[in-house]
Amino acid sequence: MRHTLHDHRHHDWNRGREPALTLAPGARVTAQTLDAADGQLKPDSTPEDVAALDPGRANPMNGPIAVDGAEPGDALVVTIRELLTGSWGWTANIPGFGLLADDFPDPVFWRWSIERGTSRAEAPGGLAWTPVHPFMGTLGLAPGTPGPHPVIPPWRTGGNMDCRDLVAGSRVILPVEAPGGLLSLGDGHAAQGDGEVCGTAVETEMRASFTVELLKGAAPAFPIVERPGETLPPAAEPRVTTTGIGPDLTEAARAAVRQMIDELTGRRNISPEAAYLLCSVCGDLRVAQIVDAPNWTVAFSFPLGRLD
Amino acid sequence: MRHTLHDHRHHDWNRGREPALTLAPGARVTAQTLDAADGQLKPDSTPEDVAALDPGRANPMNGPIAVDGAEPGDALVVTIRELLTGSWGWTANIPGFGLLADDFPDPVFWRWSIERGTSRAEAPGGLAWTPVHPFMGTLGLAPGTPGPHPVIPPWRTGGNMDCRDLVAGSRVILPVEAPGGLLSLGDGHAAQGDGEVCGTAVETEMRASFTVELLKGAAPAFPIVERPGETLPPAAEPRVTTTGIGPDLTEAARAAVRQMIDELTGRRNISPEAAYLLCSVCGDLRVAQIVDAPNWTVAFSFPLGRLD
Repeated sequence: MRHTLHDHRHHDWNRGREPALTLAPGARVTAQTLDAADGQLKPDSTPEDVAALDPGRANPMNGPIAVDGAEPGDALVVTIRELLTGSWGWTANIPGFGLLADDFPDPVFWRWSIERGTSRAEAPGGLAWTPVHPFMGTLGLAPGTPGPHPVIPPWRTGGNMDCRDLVAGSRVILPVEAPGGLLSLGDGHAAQGDGEVCGTAVETEMRASFTVELLKGAAPAFPIVERPGETLPPAAEPRVTTTGIGPDLTEAARAAVRQMIDELTGRRNISPEAAYLLCSVCGDLRVAQIVDAPNWTVAFSFPLGRLD
Repeated sequence: MRHTLHDHRHHDWNRGREPALTLAPGARVTAQTLDAADGQLKPDSTPEDVAALDPGRANPMNGPIAVDGAEPGDALVVTIRELLTGSWGWTANIPGFGLLADDFPDPVFWRWSIERGTSRAEAPGGLAWTPVHPFMGTLGLAPGTPGPHPVIPPWRTGGNMDCRDLVAGSRVILPVEAPGGLLSLGDGHAAQGDGEVCGTAVETEMRASFTVELLKGAAPAFPIVERPGETLPPAAEPRVTTTGIGPDLTEAARAAVRQMIDELTGRRNISPEAAYLLCSVCGDLRVAQIVDAPNWTVAFSFPLGRLD
């Protein structure tokens, strides 16, 4: 049985919300999701439009979908069948948001061109490019605690995980906390690096098709993703890796990203703001080691070829 | 000019240590390093031998090398030319050490077979395999503060970073804090996942050749590594990714690794201890997002094919 879910959108999690669809396990659904700014940004938007964003409209999600028989303690398995991006995407620095919010107080807006059928997105002015690897930034179930929960933080039941593994072909295993599970999704990304350090990816509309199954009594502690092999070549690219070393992972991450911004501005003629946005889209935040007490090594890797 | 550095080893950092070699920039050095247990473990060692390890002999380093003209504020650039592992390696759970030290109190010893010239290491009993990607776990300069500093934690000047990017072909850019720089290296790894979660990798002897250059006044805040493209296929492998979601990155990392251990023991007939060691050698600890306050997403990815 195939279903569509194009028009029911909401901006917070709430186990009390009326389901938009109620389905039997095994059903297939196609949902047209909006971008994370709910259509407030256009291809010709400006930094002023970023500064004027209504935060109450952030991260619209399509849903919720109730699944027959889903009860707390069960696992809902979402298999992503197809993801189709829009023809453009945006990356922004939103004042007050992002790993280096104190360093970058001013709004920035970037439009990326995404040609359907190609595997490449282009930054404004040909400054950089990135392979397109569409994934859902937000996919999850309603938390079990009553009342509204904001959409920006992810929860134990998933949501805005911004995890690059949620690509077409992946199975996402989510713990059910509310009866029916109450699945919602949105926040399509055409590309993102691990960390999403400036707070946004290549944000885009997405046409997402997926199936939903139920595993009784199989709730994981946190979401699990089974993903197919990487089909894109980024791992073969030479990379520069900056490090942050110390007892606090967040501070070490800040140090590594700050230094990458210095590297990119020093090696290429780009602004610190541009480097910060590129770090969010193309760079990967890794924990090299978390065992050599008391100092951990955080690594931030960037494929320099994206600037050529 | 070519130099060898096979016999001068030490177990802590100290800017007061007499240099084993003093070189002009541009020199090439070959060093035969010992494994992280300083030869205390043999191919036929037992868990009891792990429990009896003398911690004072951990992580021997060859060095230090003084570089003519290196002064605080300069950068020393080490270009790794060649890395040759020994014919075997070990992975251990050392009581009290590792991300899940409280969960795994008992010593474990594993011997991996590494055939020179192949790109694959085999775990005991054919339980698992891993591509061989040799790198230096420890490479750094003496910290500027006088007196001895332990070798296990990395410092601003590098050291035991356990960062997989330090492969043959990489340039490692280190901040000089002490006159001469005082470069030392050791702790060769035949393979390791990001995070090194159980505390050890595939630990091995290494024959390391490298050149040393000096960049005046170019000290980075923390070490930087420029690495060539990945030549091994791991990125093309299907992966299962567990997540940990919450405000504390370390706790989220623990949750993600614990859940991966559950996954591996549930899917394959292996013990939790074996799963923990395999997580350290084959799994990658990533920060999916560090911006969706107050909850971050830590992802731990494991290529299941390593168990086939």
